[in-house]
Amino acid sequence: MGGDAAPQIVIEGASIARERLPNVKFLIFGDETRIAPLVTKYPLLKESCEIRHTDKIVSAEEKPGQALRRGRQSSMGLAIQSVKDGESCAAVSAGNTGALMAMGKFMLKTMSGIDRPAMTSLLPTSCGESIMLDLGANVECDENNLVQFAIMGAAFARTVLGLSNPSVALLNVGVEELKGNEVIKNADRMLRDANLPMDYVGFTEGHGLANGEVDVVVTDGFTGNVALKTAEGTARMIAGMLQSALSDSLMSKIGYLFAKPALLGLKNHLDPNNHNGAVFMGLNGLVIKSHGGASAAGFASAIGVAVDMAANDLAGKITEDLKYFENHAKEDAEDKDI
Amino acid sequence: MGGDAAPQIVIEGASIARERLPNVKFLIFGDETRIAPLVTKYPLLKESCEIRHTDKIVSAEEKPGQALRRGRQSSMGLAIQSVKDGESCAAVSAGNTGALMAMGKFMLKTMSGIDRPAMTSLLPTSCGESIMLDLGANVECDENNLVQFAIMGAAFARTVLGLSNPSVALLNVGVEELKGNEVIKNADRMLRDANLPMDYVGFTEGHGLANGEVDVVVTDGFTGNVALKTAEGTARMIAGMLQSALSDSLMSKIGYLFAKPALLGLKNHLDPNNHNGAVFMGLNGLVIKSHGGASAAGFASAIGVAVDMAANDLAGKITEDLKYFENHAKEDAEDKDI
Repeated sequence: MGGDAAPQIVIEGASIARERLPNVKFLIFGDETRIAPLVTKYPLLKESCEIRHTDKIVSAEEKPGQALRRGRQSSMGLAIQSVKDGESCAAVSAGNTGALMAMGKFMLKTMSGIDRPAMTSLLPTSCGESIMLDLGANVECDENNLVQFAIMGAAFARTVLGLSNPSVALLNVGVEELKGNEVIKNADRMLRDANLPMDYVGFTEGHGLANGEVDVVVTDGFTGNVALKTAEGTARMIAGMLQSALSDSLMSKIGYLFAKPALLGLKNHLDPNNHNGAVFMGLNGLVIKSHGGASAAGFASAIGVAVDMAANDLAGKITEDLKYFENHAKEDAEDKDI
Repeated sequence: MGGDAAPQIVIEGASIARERLPNVKFLIFGDETRIAPLVTKYPLLKESCEIRHTDKIVSAEEKPGQALRRGRQSSMGLAIQSVKDGESCAAVSAGNTGALMAMGKFMLKTMSGIDRPAMTSLLPTSCGESIMLDLGANVECDENNLVQFAIMGAAFARTVLGLSNPSVALLNVGVEELKGNEVIKNADRMLRDANLPMDYVGFTEGHGLANGEVDVVVTDGFTGNVALKTAEGTARMIAGMLQSALSDSLMSKIGYLFAKPALLGLKNHLDPNNHNGAVFMGLNGLVIKSHGGASAAGFASAIGVAVDMAANDLAGKITEDLKYFENHAKEDAEDKDI
């Protein structure tokens, strides 16, 4: 029931996902009187979904605390509960981000070894896609949080991008070891020492995001949120200017007609709908956030991310790496004692 | 002598600036044997400049501390010294940023009431230009720093953009008052209460930068540096993709030929050279940093910023606002005592 055009977009998105992924089944939580007539339009979806009625919803304006107190029986709360009960593998929502995060954290709890979950997503780069986390779940992070984010991001890259040894970097104001604040310098040292199953390359800068210099960019939720929105805003600004430049004169309109197929390819690559689906990594269960303004195709992408992650035992990979890291840290401490 | 193509670009840039600004005179510090032959190519510049020879330079690799110890007689050091001595109104350099900042701070000292200088620049937006600070001088900032940055940014907007009541916002992860860390929430409260001569609007998000939602965007140097480089990187990524899309097929090449004039207008607006010239605000004297990779036209833009600021008594405006803010804070404290 969440997002700018629910439940229409959600149902249409589920239908698109269903066509691509024949083995997926859906539990759809929300107002049955509005959902059922939509579902009947898509016979394939209809035979692989079950609607669970609730008339409670978490509104876009609701504070996380309010949602926690009042939202357990809402469509969002019931969807997360179904993950907790093992009835579904992942919950996908286009609703209130803060509420989804708070309820996910409260109901599913964080994984052992993870202090804070991180919002994680794919972003378009000049050579494909990269992963960035945290995109806004934690405005303040210490070095342990950043190390845990790196471990979770690498697991994400192995699962969703299929990379065996993903490159990982910390987002900083320069690439030299001297740059940045104490937190980031400590995290850098810890990751260098840890010898984790990833290609840790050190620091990357803001332009490294768009360049696709590394597979996983790790940062605190404040910087990550600002960087994500700055990149999206810049892309939108240029697209808008391009559009008005290309409709400015007869000459440029003719030019647009010829160049249209090429420009659509570019637009397609940059369209946030094609990279939709942010994962709250680090919870005991999968919760995926779709952009509130995503199209049906965008919502289908978010479902695709959920399915990829559920099918690949992401949690198992993270737990394994965390154990490795902790044992390594313990050995290091013992070495120092000697 | 600083930047990727010095002294050629610097001299050519000074010549362009001289044509636009007939009343400006130049002191040019550096290797006379290399500079003099270049200057003779530009008769207008030649008659309004004086070359001061030094064979010492601060290299791009030099650490700020090294530059402080060894760079006083370098072209960079002598240029800043000429500002300190009142012989010139502003120093413009395309050299090592960290060294320029450190030497500027050490030699000129910060203004009374300013704890830390901030790197400040104009950025292109969808509707013109906005000002952002700090772009990387201070990786950690407290609320007092942010308030001082707001005052300096507003003075910059009044001087360089000619706005009588510039709108000012703090860069945050959301626009609601609850969002962000303690530092940013405190700065928000202080700016709301202060009733300064600016239109303080509260928080803005990453996409507000490109939208040009406000005239002045205030943030710490870590976030500002990441946001600036993310925006530049995204713009470069899209430009590169656009270029390859438009040379992809015969059709798109024809389209490009027709649309070329319109596309050049867009390229022009986004070209960092047209927004070149970052000011280290808050020093007792003007120091302006040009991009190391700026073109001659870009270096001329940086000189233009220096001239605008020197002609408009920027320092006086900042001092006035700081006094106003301090008196106001004192009154508030007295009110609370009663």
